[in-house]
Amino acid sequence: MSMQALNFGLNTIWVVLTAAMILLMEGGFALLEAGFVRSKNSVNIIMKVFADITIGTLCYYLVGFALMYGGDLLGVIGKSGFMLQGDFSYLHLSVSKDTFWLFQGAFVIAVISIVSGAVAERINFRAYLLYVVLMTMLIYPIAGHWVWGGGWLEKLGFEDFAGSAVIHALGGFSALAAAILVGARKGKFTKEGSSTIALPSNLPLASVGAFLLWFGWFGFNAGSTLQATDVRIGHIAIVTMLSAAAGGATMLIYTLFRYGRSDAPSVINGSLAGLVGITAGCAFVSDQSSILIGIVSGLLMMAATNWLEARKIDDPVGAFPVHAASGVWGTIAVGLFSTKGGLFTGGGFHLLGIQILGLAILCIWGFLLTWVGLKMIKLWVPIRATSEEEELGLDISYHGIMATHTSPEFIRLEEFFDDEKQED
Amino acid sequence: MSMQALNFGLNTIWVVLTAAMILLMEGGFALLEAGFVRSKNSVNIIMKVFADITIGTLCYYLVGFALMYGGDLLGVIGKSGFMLQGDFSYLHLSVSKDTFWLFQGAFVIAVISIVSGAVAERINFRAYLLYVVLMTMLIYPIAGHWVWGGGWLEKLGFEDFAGSAVIHALGGFSALAAAILVGARKGKFTKEGSSTIALPSNLPLASVGAFLLWFGWFGFNAGSTLQATDVRIGHIAIVTMLSAAAGGATMLIYTLFRYGRSDAPSVINGSLAGLVGITAGCAFVSDQSSILIGIVSGLLMMAATNWLEARKIDDPVGAFPVHAASGVWGTIAVGLFSTKGGLFTGGGFHLLGIQILGLAILCIWGFLLTWVGLKMIKLWVPIRATSEEEELGLDISYHGIMATHTSPEFIRLEEFFDDEKQED
Amino acid sequence: MSMQALNFGLNTIWVVLTAAMILLMEGGFALLEAGFVRSKNSVNIIMKVFADITIGTLCYYLVGFALMYGGDLLGVIGKSGFMLQGDFSYLHLSVSKDTFWLFQGAFVIAVISIVSGAVAERINFRAYLLYVVLMTMLIYPIAGHWVWGGGWLEKLGFEDFAGSAVIHALGGFSALAAAILVGARKGKFTKEGSSTIALPSNLPLASVGAFLLWFGWFGFNAGSTLQATDVRIGHIAIVTMLSAAAGGATMLIYTLFRYGRSDAPSVINGSLAGLVGITAGCAFVSDQSSILIGIVSGLLMMAATNWLEARKIDDPVGAFPVHAASGVWGTIAVGLFSTKGGLFTGGGFHLLGIQILGLAILCIWGFLLTWVGLKMIKLWVPIRATSEEEELGLDISYHGIMATHTSPEFIRLEEFFDDEKQED
Repeated sequence: MSMQALNFGLNTIWVVLTAAMILLMEGGFALLEAGFVRSKNSVNIIMKVFADITIGTLCYYLVGFALMYGGDLLGVIGKSGFMLQGDFSYLHLSVSKDTFWLFQGAFVIAVISIVSGAVAERINFRAYLLYVVLMTMLIYPIAGHWVWGGGWLEKLGFEDFAGSAVIHALGGFSALAAAILVGARKGKFTKEGSSTIALPSNLPLASVGAFLLWFGWFGFNAGSTLQATDVRIGHIAIVTMLSAAAGGATMLIYTLFRYGRSDAPSVINGSLAGLVGITAGCAFVSDQSSILIGIVSGLLMMAATNWLEARKIDDPVGAFPVHAASGVWGTIAVGLFSTKGGLFTGGGFHLLGIQILGLAILCIWGFLLTWVGLKMIKLWVPIRATSEEEELGLDISYHGIMATHTSPEFIRLEEFFDDEKQED
Repeated sequence: MSMQALNFGLNTIWVVLTAAMILLMEGGFALLEAGFVRSKNSVNIIMKVFADITIGTLCYYLVGFALMYGGDLLGVIGKSGFMLQGDFSYLHLSVSKDTFWLFQGAFVIAVISIVSGAVAERINFRAYLLYVVLMTMLIYPIAGHWVWGGGWLEKLGFEDFAGSAVIHALGGFSALAAAILVGARKGKFTKEGSSTIALPSNLPLASVGAFLLWFGWFGFNAGSTLQATDVRIGHIAIVTMLSAAAGGATMLIYTLFRYGRSDAPSVINGSLAGLVGITAGCAFVSDQSSILIGIVSGLLMMAATNWLEARKIDDPVGAFPVHAASGVWGTIAVGLFSTKGGLFTGGGFHLLGIQILGLAILCIWGFLLTWVGLKMIKLWVPIRATSEEEELGLDISYHGIMATHTSPEFIRLEEFFDDEKQED
Repeated sequence: MSMQALNFGLNTIWVVLTAAMILLMEGGFALLEAGFVRSKNSVNIIMKVFADITIGTLCYYLVGFALMYGGDLLGVIGKSGFMLQGDFSYLHLSVSKDTFWLFQGAFVIAVISIVSGAVAERINFRAYLLYVVLMTMLIYPIAGHWVWGGGWLEKLGFEDFAGSAVIHALGGFSALAAAILVGARKGKFTKEGSSTIALPSNLPLASVGAFLLWFGWFGFNAGSTLQATDVRIGHIAIVTMLSAAAGGATMLIYTLFRYGRSDAPSVINGSLAGLVGITAGCAFVSDQSSILIGIVSGLLMMAATNWLEARKIDDPVGAFPVHAASGVWGTIAVGLFSTKGGLFTGGGFHLLGIQILGLAILCIWGFLLTWVGLKMIKLWVPIRATSEEEELGLDISYHGIMATHTSPEFIRLEEFFDDEKQED
C-alpha cells in the first residue's frame, strides 16, 4: 500500500460520500416543495424531481459534462468528453473521472431542482421534461465551464467555491424567468390587488426536506474541496453551519417581533438562505463574516419574497428568494469579506468588481436562456397546464393519482383508467 | 502513525459509514412500503421493519453470521463463529471482524425487508416474527455462504458483487413464495376477473423512502469493496447512479406515452429496479452497459408486475417485480456484459452459464425454504390474519393504534385497552 | 503528501461526516416528536427544534464552547476561547478547532432537543427560546467541562464515552424539571385519577424520525473517537447496533406478550433507549454486555414511563424515560461491565463508585439549573401557554399555521393575519 494509493482512496471515499449526500438533497427538494404546495400538486412536484434525477442525470452524462469539463474552446465551451470518453488529464483531478463526474452530476440536478419549485402547480409536465433536457445539457454546463471548467470567468479570477453564483443565482434567475413566463397560479393575484396565500399542504413533510437539504449541504460545500486533505474542510463546515443558523435564527426572531409569531416557512427558508449565501465564500471568509452573511441572507430572502409579491410574480416555494437573492448576496460577499482580496478585508475593489461582473453575466445567462428556451418549447408543447388541469390538480391531471388516499377499498382498474381518461 | 494503521483506519470508516447508510435503507423500506399500502396497514408494515432490524439483527449475530462466514464445511455451510467468537483470520479481512459484521448485518436486514413488502396487509404478525428468525438465522446465511463465505458457488466462479442474486433475487423469490402461500388480500381479485388496485395511502411518504433507499444504495454497492483504496469505488458509484437514472427515466417516459401520464409508483419502482439490476455487476460492467441494464430493469419490473396480476398473485408493494425480476436480470447481465468474461464482451458462455446456474439455485433455495418454513410455522401459528383483522386493518388488530390520529382530545387508557381487547 | 497530512485529512473527514450525521438527528428529533404529539402542536415542536439548531448553535459558538473547552479554571469552568478565538493547543486535538467545534456543536443541540420533547404541547414559545439560550450557553457547557473539558469529574476518572450521562441523563433530568414546572397538559390527568392518552398524530412520521436518529447515532458514538485510526471504531459501531436491536426487540416481544399487541411507540422508544444506554460504554463493554444493556434499557424505559404516569408528570414524547432512565443505566453499566475496571469484569467498586457519584451530580445539576432557570424566566415571560392557546393548539397560537392544510383555494393575506391577531 503506497502513500499515493492511500491518498487516492481517501479522496475517493470523501467525494463519493459527499456526492451521495448531495444526491440525498433531491429527496430534500422533493419533500420541501411537496410540503409547501397544495396537496393536489404534491405528487407532480415529486415526479418533477424524479425527472431531474433520472433524465437530468442521463443528459448530463451524454452531453452536459463534456460542454462543462471537456477540452476548452476559446474559454467559452468544452468540446470533448461526451459520455465520459477520452482523456481528462488536463483537469489534474484528485480522484478518478468517474468519481468527479458523480459529484458534478449531483450538482447539475440541484440546479434544475431549483427551477422545479418556482413553476410548481401550473407548468405543463411535458414542457418541464423538455426544459430539464435544456438545462442539464446546455444552460448550466456552458455557464459551469466559464466558472469551473477552465473558461473565461475562471481565468479572470471569479471566485465561487461551491456555487452560490453558478448553481444558486443562475438557478434562481432561471426560476424567475420560468415563473414569469408560465404565469401565476389561478387565483393567486386577485383583481382588487389584495395578496393571497395558498397554505402549505404539509409542514412536517417540508421540514424533513429542509433537514435533508441541510445535511446534504455539508457534502455540497465541504465536498467541493475534492480532496480530503484540504485543510479548509473543517472551516468550510463550521461556516456552513454558522451561516445556516444565523439565517434561520434571524427569521425566527424577525417574524416573532414583526408579526407576533415565528413563521415556520420563513424560518425554514431563512436557514436555507443562510446555506445558499455561504456557498460561494465558505472557503474564503471568517467565522464572523459567515454569521453576517447568514443574517443578511435571511433578510434578503424575506425582502425578495415581498418584491415578488409586489411585482405579482408567483413563486410558490420561494425558489427565487432563497436561491437567487441569497446566491447573489453570497457571491458579492466574497468580494467584500474574502480573506484574500475582499473589500472590507484590505483587498480593494478588484475582486469585488470581478464578482459583480461574473454574477451579472451568470444571472442574465440563466434568465435569458430559460426565457428563450421555454419560448421555443412553447412552439411544440404548451408550457402551461390547462385551466381544467390546474383546477383538478396536476397530480390527477398528469399522474392519475393523488398524494394521499384514505379509502380502504380496492377499486377496479378499468374504472381507474376510465376516470383518468375523462380527467386527462 | 504507521501506513498500515492509516490504511486500516481508512477502511474502517469507509465500511462503518457505508454500513450506516445501508441501515438507513431500513427507514427507506419502512416508508416506501407504508406509503404504498392502505393507511390501515401502515403501522404494521413499519413494525415489521422494526422486527427485521431488531430481532433479525440479534438472530444474525447469534447464529446467522456463523453459518455464513464461519469455517467452511464442505462448501455448504459455516460451522464456527457463533456470537462472533473465535478466529476469522481465514477471511483475510481488510477491517476488524466487528466492522465486517456490521456491514453484513445491514445486508441480512435488507433481505428480510424485501419479503415484508410482499406479504403486506394480511400476514399474521406472530408468524412473520417467526419467519424473520428463519430467514436471518438460516435461509439467507446458508445461501450467502455459498456465494460470499467460501462456499461452492464462490469456488465455481459465480460473480455477484453486492448481491443482485443472493440479496435481491433470493429475497424476491422468497417474497413470491410467501405471497402465494399467504394468499391475496381480500377483494384484490374479483370473481369476474377484473383487476383492481388499492390506492397508495401516501405517495410523498413513499418517496421519502425511495430517496433514502437510493442514498443507501451507494453504501450498499460501493461499500461492498470493503476497502477504501479499491480503485473501483468511483466506477461502482457512477454505474449505480446511471442504472438507477435509466430505470426511472424509462418508466417515466414509458408510462407517459403508454398511458398518457407518468405513473408515480412505476417511476419510483423503476428507479429501484435500476438499482437492483446494477447491484451484481457494478464492479464489472461499463458505464454504457449500466444504462442498458437500468433500462431493461425498469421494463422487466413492469412486465413482472403484469405477470403477477395475470397469475392472480398479490404483491402489494411490488417486491417481486423490483427485487426478483431485476435481480435475476442483473445477475445474468454480469454474464453478458462483464468486462472479464461476459458473452458480449468477448468472454464466451462460461461465465454466463455459471451465473444462470447459481441464480437458479438461489431462487429455488429462497422459494423452497420459505415455502417449507411458512408451512411449518403454520402448524403452530396461523400465517394469515383473520378476515376480521384484515378488514379492521392490521394496525388496529396487531398494534391497537392507527397511523394517524386527528383527535385533539385525551382518551381514557382503560377505554383504549378495552377497545383493543374487543378488536383483537 | 506527508503521512501526517494524510492522517489529519482522514480524521477531518471522519469528524465532519459524523458531525453531519449528528446534525441530521435534529431532523430525527423534530419528526419523532411531531409524530408523537397531537397534530395541532406539530409545527410548534418542529420550530422548537429549529430554535435549538439555529439559536442554540449561535449561543454555543459565542459562549458555551468557551465555558466547556476553554482554559480550565479550578476544574469547574473554562475561561477562554469565546467565539473560538485563541489557542486550544492544550486540548491536543486530532483535528482543527473548527472541526472539533462542529462535532461539539452537534452535541449541544442534541441536549436541548431532549428537553423540547418533554415540554411539548404547552410551553410558552418565548420562554422556550430563553431556555435554549440558558442551556446552550451555561447548563450543558459547564457540566460538559467537568466531564470532557478537563474538569474535576474527568480528573476523577469518570467515564462517559459519548454522553449517556452528560448528554442524555443531564438532558433527561432537565426535561423532568421542565415538565414538572410547566405542568401537565390540560386533560391529561383527570380528577378521578384514570390515566389518559393522547394518540400520536402521525406514526409513520415518527418512524422517519427514529430511523434518522438511529442512523445519526453511529456518528454520535463512533465519531466520538475523533480519530479515524482509533481501533475501537468497529467495536463501537457493533455494540451500538446490538444494544439498539436488543432494546427494540425487548419492547416488541414484551408488549406482544403483556398486552397482546406490539406497541409501536414502545418499540420505537425501546430502540432509542437501547441507543442511549450504550452511549456511555460503547468503547468499553463487550458485545454480550451491550445486548444486556439494551434489554435493560428497554425495560427501564417502560418502567420510567409508568413511574411518570403514577406521579402524574406529563412527558408527551417520553423524553425522561428514553434519555434519563437509559442514560442513568448506561452510565452505571460502565461501572459494571467496563473491560477496564467494571465490577462484574473483575474491577471492584472503584469505577462504579465514581460513575454513580458523577451521575448524581450531573442529574442534580441539570434538574436544579433548569428549575431555577425556568423560575427566573417566569419572572419575565409566562412559561406556560394560556389555556386558550393550548386548546387552540400551539401551531395556530404561536405560528399562525397548521401542520397540514387540505384547502386547494387561495385565501386573502389580510384575512390570514386578521385571524392570527384574533387568535394570538
